[in-house]
Amino acid sequence: MSLNSFGHLFRVTTWGESHGLALGATLDGCPPGVPIDAAAIQHWLDQRKPGQNKYTTQRREADEVEILSGVFEGKSTGTPIQLMIRNTDQRSKDYGDIVEKFRPGHADITYWQKYGIRDYRGGGRSSARETAARVAAGGVARAALAILAPDMRITGYMVQMGPHGIDRNRFDWDQIAQNPFWVPDAQAAGDWADYLDGLRKSGDSVGAVIEVTARGVPAGLGAPVYGKLDTDLAAAMMSINAVKGVEIGDGMATAALTGSANADEISMGPDGPVYHSNHAGGILGGISTGQDVVVRFAVKPTSSILTPRRTITKSGEDTEIVTKGRHDPCVGIRAVPVGEAMMACILLDHILLHRGQIGTNQGRIG
Amino acid sequence: MSLNSFGHLFRVTTWGESHGLALGATLDGCPPGVPIDAAAIQHWLDQRKPGQNKYTTQRREADEVEILSGVFEGKSTGTPIQLMIRNTDQRSKDYGDIVEKFRPGHADITYWQKYGIRDYRGGGRSSARETAARVAAGGVARAALAILAPDMRITGYMVQMGPHGIDRNRFDWDQIAQNPFWVPDAQAAGDWADYLDGLRKSGDSVGAVIEVTARGVPAGLGAPVYGKLDTDLAAAMMSINAVKGVEIGDGMATAALTGSANADEISMGPDGPVYHSNHAGGILGGISTGQDVVVRFAVKPTSSILTPRRTITKSGEDTEIVTKGRHDPCVGIRAVPVGEAMMACILLDHILLHRGQIGTNQGRIG
Amino acid sequence: MSLNSFGHLFRVTTWGESHGLALGATLDGCPPGVPIDAAAIQHWLDQRKPGQNKYTTQRREADEVEILSGVFEGKSTGTPIQLMIRNTDQRSKDYGDIVEKFRPGHADITYWQKYGIRDYRGGGRSSARETAARVAAGGVARAALAILAPDMRITGYMVQMGPHGIDRNRFDWDQIAQNPFWVPDAQAAGDWADYLDGLRKSGDSVGAVIEVTARGVPAGLGAPVYGKLDTDLAAAMMSINAVKGVEIGDGMATAALTGSANADEISMGPDGPVYHSNHAGGILGGISTGQDVVVRFAVKPTSSILTPRRTITKSGEDTEIVTKGRHDPCVGIRAVPVGEAMMACILLDHILLHRGQIGTNQGRIG
Amino acid sequence: MSLNSFGHLFRVTTWGESHGLALGATLDGCPPGVPIDAAAIQHWLDQRKPGQNKYTTQRREADEVEILSGVFEGKSTGTPIQLMIRNTDQRSKDYGDIVEKFRPGHADITYWQKYGIRDYRGGGRSSARETAARVAAGGVARAALAILAPDMRITGYMVQMGPHGIDRNRFDWDQIAQNPFWVPDAQAAGDWADYLDGLRKSGDSVGAVIEVTARGVPAGLGAPVYGKLDTDLAAAMMSINAVKGVEIGDGMATAALTGSANADEISMGPDGPVYHSNHAGGILGGISTGQDVVVRFAVKPTSSILTPRRTITKSGEDTEIVTKGRHDPCVGIRAVPVGEAMMACILLDHILLHRGQIGTNQGRIG
Repeated sequence: MSLNSFGHLFRVTTWGESHGLALGATLDGCPPGVPIDAAAIQHWLDQRKPGQNKYTTQRREADEVEILSGVFEGKSTGTPIQLMIRNTDQRSKDYGDIVEKFRPGHADITYWQKYGIRDYRGGGRSSARETAARVAAGGVARAALAILAPDMRITGYMVQMGPHGIDRNRFDWDQIAQNPFWVPDAQAAGDWADYLDGLRKSGDSVGAVIEVTARGVPAGLGAPVYGKLDTDLAAAMMSINAVKGVEIGDGMATAALTGSANADEISMGPDGPVYHSNHAGGILGGISTGQDVVVRFAVKPTSSILTPRRTITKSGEDTEIVTKGRHDPCVGIRAVPVGEAMMACILLDHILLHRGQIGTNQGRIG
Repeated sequence: MSLNSFGHLFRVTTWGESHGLALGATLDGCPPGVPIDAAAIQHWLDQRKPGQNKYTTQRREADEVEILSGVFEGKSTGTPIQLMIRNTDQRSKDYGDIVEKFRPGHADITYWQKYGIRDYRGGGRSSARETAARVAAGGVARAALAILAPDMRITGYMVQMGPHGIDRNRFDWDQIAQNPFWVPDAQAAGDWADYLDGLRKSGDSVGAVIEVTARGVPAGLGAPVYGKLDTDLAAAMMSINAVKGVEIGDGMATAALTGSANADEISMGPDGPVYHSNHAGGILGGISTGQDVVVRFAVKPTSSILTPRRTITKSGEDTEIVTKGRHDPCVGIRAVPVGEAMMACILLDHILLHRGQIGTNQGRIG
Repeated sequence: MSLNSFGHLFRVTTWGESHGLALGATLDGCPPGVPIDAAAIQHWLDQRKPGQNKYTTQRREADEVEILSGVFEGKSTGTPIQLMIRNTDQRSKDYGDIVEKFRPGHADITYWQKYGIRDYRGGGRSSARETAARVAAGGVARAALAILAPDMRITGYMVQMGPHGIDRNRFDWDQIAQNPFWVPDAQAAGDWADYLDGLRKSGDSVGAVIEVTARGVPAGLGAPVYGKLDTDLAAAMMSINAVKGVEIGDGMATAALTGSANADEISMGPDGPVYHSNHAGGILGGISTGQDVVVRFAVKPTSSILTPRRTITKSGEDTEIVTKGRHDPCVGIRAVPVGEAMMACILLDHILLHRGQIGTNQGRIG
Repeated sequence: MSLNSFGHLFRVTTWGESHGLALGATLDGCPPGVPIDAAAIQHWLDQRKPGQNKYTTQRREADEVEILSGVFEGKSTGTPIQLMIRNTDQRSKDYGDIVEKFRPGHADITYWQKYGIRDYRGGGRSSARETAARVAAGGVARAALAILAPDMRITGYMVQMGPHGIDRNRFDWDQIAQNPFWVPDAQAAGDWADYLDGLRKSGDSVGAVIEVTARGVPAGLGAPVYGKLDTDLAAAMMSINAVKGVEIGDGMATAALTGSANADEISMGPDGPVYHSNHAGGILGGISTGQDVVVRFAVKPTSSILTPRRTITKSGEDTEIVTKGRHDPCVGIRAVPVGEAMMACILLDHILLHRGQIGTNQGRIG
């Protein structure tokens, strides 16, 4: 019931603060015999790493992962895997205004109100830095999925930045890794660069919508009624810093649909059911259909900005705050690998859960 | 790790199928000494009950709750409370096409693919009827909240039906109980009645957006980073049948905001912090701020419709299906009390969790 | 984290009080397709049922189980199974002294001190009657085990009653069902009958030691270091009313052994490892070896006795108590089927857990 | 549902292998504001540390704990606390026979059979070295208990080594820390030294019984029927390496008692109930009475011995094994601080659980 954990059989617990000695993830329940390689995990961490380009915080972190346990001669042993990332760039000891003042829109005030003590350095536990541990965990999950579901491909990308959305007609999977925003639309990538540049210079920030698609997901993952695949995905994405909304398939837009329009019609194909559409985002009744699983989430704009905002101090005085320092103008960019990692962890967990309860017997059609 | 359970300290497990003998909820962890009254629970169940007006399914269920355990001389004892609702109106034994055919957009096919066995009667476990158990559980949660947080008020209402949204300028709390749609906008209630009437007659259905607001929530509920209040609320709402999207505060719209616009500025009031806006929906960093907690979720249109849709049979043949019977043209209507119940359960759980870890010591401002 | 639940993937939650309307078990995670038959469950319940002979309480309960959910056309569907047993014989409304006085050695006083409210009727939730729900759950677990581990046989029996132990040289599996004490030693059965008769007439009670052996358990069940098979078995048995000690294999006696005596030597047999002894009780490092799994537990004597004992009242006055009514002179007798049921539930759970994490790949020897 | 975790609200997950880079404990749910000091944790670790005297393994480990997260300016923040202990003395790379052969009585064979991969170095995850993480966790638990239950004192001691028990008439709390065996009986300490010396020289090992007593435990901790305090204590102790039996109060001996002898009679004292005896070990119905909580557990003899034992190899050949190296003749000695640590963790957890469900309202007597 650890509050910093998620997953049923593949259980991930993250720990650590932004400016503490280290942060990491304790993974329990990984199947044995999975090749686990620090370099492969590092590959995913490098995608999330700050300072990669001018659109992300200029904090420089090596973000080097150490595997402290659970791996022997390059393979998982089935016992807990401890992944640790040392914090190396804690820079100045001057934390400025945030020691005494609460940033509006930030967890500063709620942590204080809850706990009566707050590691204010870089946001402590509420920092987006915590997501590095999730990305590392996702690297292990992907390694296990490569064995258990070798056809599965998990891809995250940005579909909206501030008011600007992508044009789905220009959707191109190959574009995603070609631009700093993980956008599957080359033209949007160019336009957004100018937009974000302006925003960055003005010291402001902006939100984004990230979509994560898992292709090759077997039918039958998930369970009624609180172990639903979409329930766990919604929780997984909502637990990421700054996320304020989660959608499966057509999401909020399904409210405007009629039943006849929303029904994803089915035909029989050579390898099983074939769907004529995917409004459902690959999940019906909480269980995967075999279609692409599609999740979207909105990331609010960073609250650490140069624009002065009214706030109060710990001692209850009205004041203003301006947050200097190295912050992301669009923290949504770095949320893309995080969303992928969460998808990987949840899908691995549900594959293990399904195997546990059901084994290999499933209902056959035809 | 029961997949049909939610909650940490106040733990709700629902059980039962649409056309089985009974359904119910097993509640564990309720504080002792809470006055529990079948009539009070019944009050909430009656709001969700089918057949209340022409806009909900004409299935007639008494939906009478029996308290089988955990209550002694009218008060909770602290041991498990078993709430049972007998299924009384199972009507004909003729389940028609759904025995062999899968309804597009329905869990029929995924349950079959997962389990290889399926209680097809009325949707079995995947029926919206399961939510009666949640509403009953919510009734107990409200009774406990009446003691632990007497100023808390939880109110659900519809803000969108199909393409039609409410006008927030006409928002009126008192209107909500005055119309069959739980709409806080008298004019919308009238307009929507006509719209839904037409839809019902055409045999089609439509989606909706429900908003649930909790007023009087104390600051400090929730916890990093997977026990966040918004994580649990997102999971709670997404676990309701037919829900495809969940938003906290401004939700998906935060993507379009700048950081300066999104920051809910703070001043010091006589009783603590006062916020100038509530884009955050009352939650920062996963922890309540003391503002209204605002959650929204989209309910997709019912898949049981009279419009013929292409589908396949269990034996893998292409066919069409038309679902006759008693179905809701807008199942979102009956989701309103369900959303309220889930909010009540989650908030009670987090009040207990907070008390467990922190006790009564919290951070003070000023 | 429900406190009235146990099991990881096969999750059992019991509910109900001795003299409430009903009691039962909510089972989540049962594999689908398992033949579930009320009569088969009843078979196990009848073994535990009071009033079977003069050595058990003369309370008459039909103990008829109703399956309210999770079973369709005679097979489990994979969704929660609700088992309910109505309380029929609540007899007089006169609960006598126990309304105001606490029985020494009984949970009366601790329930009061914890909750400030207490269902005193028949011990409420602390009554041994709760174990009927466990036995019913065990019936379902056995049905699943019959498919997943068809060679497994789980047998409980009494090895000590009061000061009298069995003679292991006379151990005879076939004797167990031939006497009212479930003793595998015909001579002991006769001797103990006289002993217990005397005790019963004197109004006193006595303790017992129960042993449960599972034969045909596959190697590899369990996990480090808190999901150990022996950890879960110890908790399962200790959670039974009146149990004060649990042993695996040689148990407490291993303290007196040397390492050379305690080592169960191994040879290679035609079907895998063969052990020369079983001090370990079939579990090494928390994981099953493939030998018989052997668990023993001590049941203390019933505290409801005719001998007057000093105690206090709710209002804090010194007094004496004599508990009249229908009580077991050796409640350990009825604990035998309960111990079997707990063993069945735990082994099923670990089979599912093992399958979830490991699948069918295991280490081979030779 | 992590298998390497225990606790409900105060949740401990241990990780790491005997000869890996490090091992540790991830603690979630610690109350905020608790003074946490590496030196204080080190105090407890030093008691368990090998190589303290000639009766424990001569492996030299610094066992220095690093606090990586969850503590800010010397106090817990309420977020996860990561405790890491580097493995420093892994000595030779020659693991000898244990690479290919299974030690009888050791987890070597079951880990292999379960996982198909095994970190054979020093026993990997199954090594008693894992208990260092528990002792570190216990240090944090004690710090929290010092605030929440300042009168509580937790003391472990040995009451039996091999065939030799203590004389309860000579029981002296002050003796416990005066001898290498943690024996509360000065004469036994002397006698046992000779006995163990002989055993050590012969290359054999022996078992032990450890008792842990918690004084000053408030009444009301625990819960029916699977969250019982004794259930959690039994699981906690059984999860320690080499433990084969657990007793509460009179334990297995209660089987031989009559109800009249076993009943702990009660009188009213100036501060509440006073018990005339403590057969129950401070727990009735799973809930603490306010008396001393007394738990006992048996530790089997180490299986790594110099006496040759018959065994098999991974490839299935019959052979013999002699385990050279640095092993404990009586590993029970080092289990004393481990048992204390487990008691501390469980009691803290139940204090938090009680506060969560019940708050400060409890039943009053008188």
